[in-house]
Amino acid sequence: MEESSLLWYEEPFTEGLRFLYRVKRIIYRGRSKFQNIDILDLEAFGKTLFLDGKIQSAEIDEYIYHEALVHPAMLLHPEPKKVLILGGGEGATLREILKHPVEEVYMVDIDGELVEACRKYMPEWPNGAFEDKRTRLIIDDARNFVFETDKKFDVVISDLTEPLEEGPSKLLFTEEFYRKVKEILSPQGLIAVQSGSADPLYGFFFDSVFKTLKEVFSEVKQYLTFVFSFQMLWGFTLASKDLEINFENKEIFYNRIKSRGIQLEYIDPEILPSLFVLPRYLDKLRDKGVIIKDEKPFIWEA
Amino acid sequence: MEESSLLWYEEPFTEGLRFLYRVKRIIYRGRSKFQNIDILDLEAFGKTLFLDGKIQSAEIDEYIYHEALVHPAMLLHPEPKKVLILGGGEGATLREILKHPVEEVYMVDIDGELVEACRKYMPEWPNGAFEDKRTRLIIDDARNFVFETDKKFDVVISDLTEPLEEGPSKLLFTEEFYRKVKEILSPQGLIAVQSGSADPLYGFFFDSVFKTLKEVFSEVKQYLTFVFSFQMLWGFTLASKDLEINFENKEIFYNRIKSRGIQLEYIDPEILPSLFVLPRYLDKLRDKGVIIKDEKPFIWEA
Amino acid sequence: MEESSLLWYEEPFTEGLRFLYRVKRIIYRGRSKFQNIDILDLEAFGKTLFLDGKIQSAEIDEYIYHEALVHPAMLLHPEPKKVLILGGGEGATLREILKHPVEEVYMVDIDGELVEACRKYMPEWPNGAFEDKRTRLIIDDARNFVFETDKKFDVVISDLTEPLEEGPSKLLFTEEFYRKVKEILSPQGLIAVQSGSADPLYGFFFDSVFKTLKEVFSEVKQYLTFVFSFQMLWGFTLASKDLEINFENKEIFYNRIKSRGIQLEYIDPEILPSLFVLPRYLDKLRDKGVIIKDEKPFIWEA
Amino acid sequence: MEESSLLWYEEPFTEGLRFLYRVKRIIYRGRSKFQNIDILDLEAFGKTLFLDGKIQSAEIDEYIYHEALVHPAMLLHPEPKKVLILGGGEGATLREILKHPVEEVYMVDIDGELVEACRKYMPEWPNGAFEDKRTRLIIDDARNFVFETDKKFDVVISDLTEPLEEGPSKLLFTEEFYRKVKEILSPQGLIAVQSGSADPLYGFFFDSVFKTLKEVFSEVKQYLTFVFSFQMLWGFTLASKDLEINFENKEIFYNRIKSRGIQLEYIDPEILPSLFVLPRYLDKLRDKGVIIKDEKPFIWEA
Repeated sequence: MEESSLLWYEEPFTEGLRFLYRVKRIIYRGRSKFQNIDILDLEAFGKTLFLDGKIQSAEIDEYIYHEALVHPAMLLHPEPKKVLILGGGEGATLREILKHPVEEVYMVDIDGELVEACRKYMPEWPNGAFEDKRTRLIIDDARNFVFETDKKFDVVISDLTEPLEEGPSKLLFTEEFYRKVKEILSPQGLIAVQSGSADPLYGFFFDSVFKTLKEVFSEVKQYLTFVFSFQMLWGFTLASKDLEINFENKEIFYNRIKSRGIQLEYIDPEILPSLFVLPRYLDKLRDKGVIIKDEKPFIWEA
Repeated sequence: MEESSLLWYEEPFTEGLRFLYRVKRIIYRGRSKFQNIDILDLEAFGKTLFLDGKIQSAEIDEYIYHEALVHPAMLLHPEPKKVLILGGGEGATLREILKHPVEEVYMVDIDGELVEACRKYMPEWPNGAFEDKRTRLIIDDARNFVFETDKKFDVVISDLTEPLEEGPSKLLFTEEFYRKVKEILSPQGLIAVQSGSADPLYGFFFDSVFKTLKEVFSEVKQYLTFVFSFQMLWGFTLASKDLEINFENKEIFYNRIKSRGIQLEYIDPEILPSLFVLPRYLDKLRDKGVIIKDEKPFIWEA
Repeated sequence: MEESSLLWYEEPFTEGLRFLYRVKRIIYRGRSKFQNIDILDLEAFGKTLFLDGKIQSAEIDEYIYHEALVHPAMLLHPEPKKVLILGGGEGATLREILKHPVEEVYMVDIDGELVEACRKYMPEWPNGAFEDKRTRLIIDDARNFVFETDKKFDVVISDLTEPLEEGPSKLLFTEEFYRKVKEILSPQGLIAVQSGSADPLYGFFFDSVFKTLKEVFSEVKQYLTFVFSFQMLWGFTLASKDLEINFENKEIFYNRIKSRGIQLEYIDPEILPSLFVLPRYLDKLRDKGVIIKDEKPFIWEA
Repeated sequence: MEESSLLWYEEPFTEGLRFLYRVKRIIYRGRSKFQNIDILDLEAFGKTLFLDGKIQSAEIDEYIYHEALVHPAMLLHPEPKKVLILGGGEGATLREILKHPVEEVYMVDIDGELVEACRKYMPEWPNGAFEDKRTRLIIDDARNFVFETDKKFDVVISDLTEPLEEGPSKLLFTEEFYRKVKEILSPQGLIAVQSGSADPLYGFFFDSVFKTLKEVFSEVKQYLTFVFSFQMLWGFTLASKDLEINFENKEIFYNRIKSRGIQLEYIDPEILPSLFVLPRYLDKLRDKGVIIKDEKPFIWEA
């Protein structure tokens, strides 16, 4: 009699490493118009979403990733009312934003089948966020939305998959796209971008996002968070039109968290400044990153 | 975008070998009262059944296993009318038997949930056999049935899983059990027993089945078939009350196949005698097998 | 403390199967001018040779492969005096041939580094055969030798790796090459060819060797042997200029084995005819094989 | 022809994850009196040492681990002259310490065979440190040394393997041992302890080391570093007799680094304080750790 499941899921990584997750149960497997969707119950991490074979978020620590993506930007802004999510299919980014007293959150994800699968099979992620009356869910290419909207946003959160050759995110990390994002930001507006692995070996994307945002915004800062289920440091980038990106004055952030009535498990005013202290070895990336352009987008190679 | 599935199924084998099958699709996974049932669509072998992690039969070559198990016994008997299957959950053994002009086939399998899962998810295996009016399906411990029935059978086919400590087949390979089987055989009756791997390293069970049947029947012969999806030679044992086990006279078997109107893909009168020629290296097993008794049953260790 | 080695060797097979051998000890790893050579001590099979990642022979059962390759041809010939081996790097084919009272055995292998590594690290394979005074070892392309020699041979044994694109065996399975082999055979001469997997899924090569030899020789027969460490049925092909290929009269072969004083562990007159009974499912290959030509050689794809 | 090596090394981890490293070359494998030693050249990480199957340090980022272990303690002490290393077999901890103007460094490692293998096969790690005239290498159980020495040390660095049942480190993390360490510290002395994974799932050891040191020292602080080749956050613990553990005043540490003439790649006064900011989710460990005693040592289960 078997003691543990004999099913394994293998994440394609690099030639030199092979990583297998033991699968307790298959929850959903399908292919949407845009990508392969696997929702699995893993022995090590619980319920976990993979898109095109790459881990997106896991029950055990999705709060770390999503809090790290959302709250630095939201807390830095003195009064975020209008927020836009680029991507964000699982609904957890939406959930975190709605902890703040916002007026409206637009979430624009190209993959309606993914959003439906997440709502149905991963309801713990949105935790009711899709039913919140402040939520505006739009199934569309986020690029279309950004180029066509006449709305203004205080905070934009880019929660997109890495730009794969055949994937839907290829033109959502380019200088041209960020210029357009800047136009739809309110005067104190800022954007937070999930920026992929911060491993010095694979972190060219992280540096490229920084360099590209630097072409458009004068104030750009990188920060890092360790995510267990990713087994690596994860990079994020904040870019601001006008606000200084600085978390040294903890008092401000204690007050904002208190006055907004926010409950968090990972982000707090103590840890915030430490996330922005990058190790010097990442300097080695500085000459590897490129400015990403529409005509020559960055393509992530599996 | 992934080119092939990232799911793998690992069959527990020996410490020194690890074998992984790429899984295209999960068809069914469950645990019955008796065993873990996995029905998977494998890239290499198509639809495949695993019980307690051990491969049972695969779409690509289940006909080889099932023809080899059923037809030597059925063709040797001049006129098999009443047949009994011990186990046989998938229904393919039943399917093969029904190719002969039998009157009644009793199939006694302890695991009703397994039989139902196979009927529902592997209908190509029985291919309608469960609906044949000659079929008598009984969900019960085959040992109970054999000890209690007052019927007589011309052929008994033992299509059981290997005897695992916690599995349902432990007392269905013992000398005491075979004595009882002999009692319910008609005068020309015989029994065919699937007898596990014929690998000299792991073939102690094959030899033990032979030695045990030899205690009960005077005419006992072993034969071998290679099954691709098992990746090894598979052993079978024939034991007869009275009939000589001899396939040298091909004419007899050509005639029986023709007169019974049987269509086969693997077994034919040419190959039959060759299956009974065992390589000499299996002699090394001769002092490893034991006579299997109720009080000390053979336990297969994974 | 680890109980067993944490090193594994993975044999590239098909996309759908992954096979890992636990490695007790690395004996030798190197790259000759022609191929990658790995000699490993495997927990399951003992000392084992891999060329370009493909298993060649293993301590546990190399005798099965080598006896099956050598003795059908050698026993069929009434008095083999001059023998030629194409390839045969390990030296075990040579060892088996020398059991017969031959006068001279030429072994022509292109890869002198391989032969040296085998002599040094796998001395159990040749077991002194390279020191036998009847042995003529030539390091050369077997094609050169066959096209240039003015000697005649009673038996030729083709013990070559499968023809890989970059490997050394590509032009040693072609019709043109076999025509030349036929010219250097004595009147009763014959050739035995190791012909790869006999799996119906991967057996196109086996059928192609048969079809190609059929273009050159009138008497061609295929036979099969199961090799544990290969985990599949293995195909061989015999082709003869004049001798009938028939093992039905066991008396002849009992006598030859006795009069030549040969000790074998696997091949004997009982099993010989059974090896030539091919299962009908291999007929499915009949329209897949091709006649292999110099200008369009068969290339085995990993 | 194979494109990349077919050898893999599997690190035993948890039931739910399986991690395989592709091995370019075996540099050394052996078993000392105390542990299994594997020195491998990995495709992903370069030269890498495993003890009893657990990764110890890798060419690609050993500087991160060793700088994080050594320099916080060494920089905090105003004038470290006498230093003791418990364990430290690879010699890289020694190398880092010798960057400071110390007078003597005692390194006490129980496993002389390991030290020799590292010196011979991993000379980049010590980089000449064993030949430094300030080095005193002693092959002995560090417990013996600590209980018997009459010397005093300014800094003790505990660079030991996790305490395995059969391993040599079992009694080197106990309260009784730390009491003895405290006795051999000079008045301003402190100890730095590598404390294993800081993963909330496996981090009970990290918390236990903290709780145990807290029984002995009044000033104890934990800190974290991400190590790529470990693929997780790694925990360290600092305990001090008298000195306050505080890195907020960066000026002090800029000055010490400059005046001591130290070149570092990872540790600097900017990152130092951020390492001591622990994420709140580690609070979940607080009730899992135990005070480790001689009579009930902590045993790490693979």
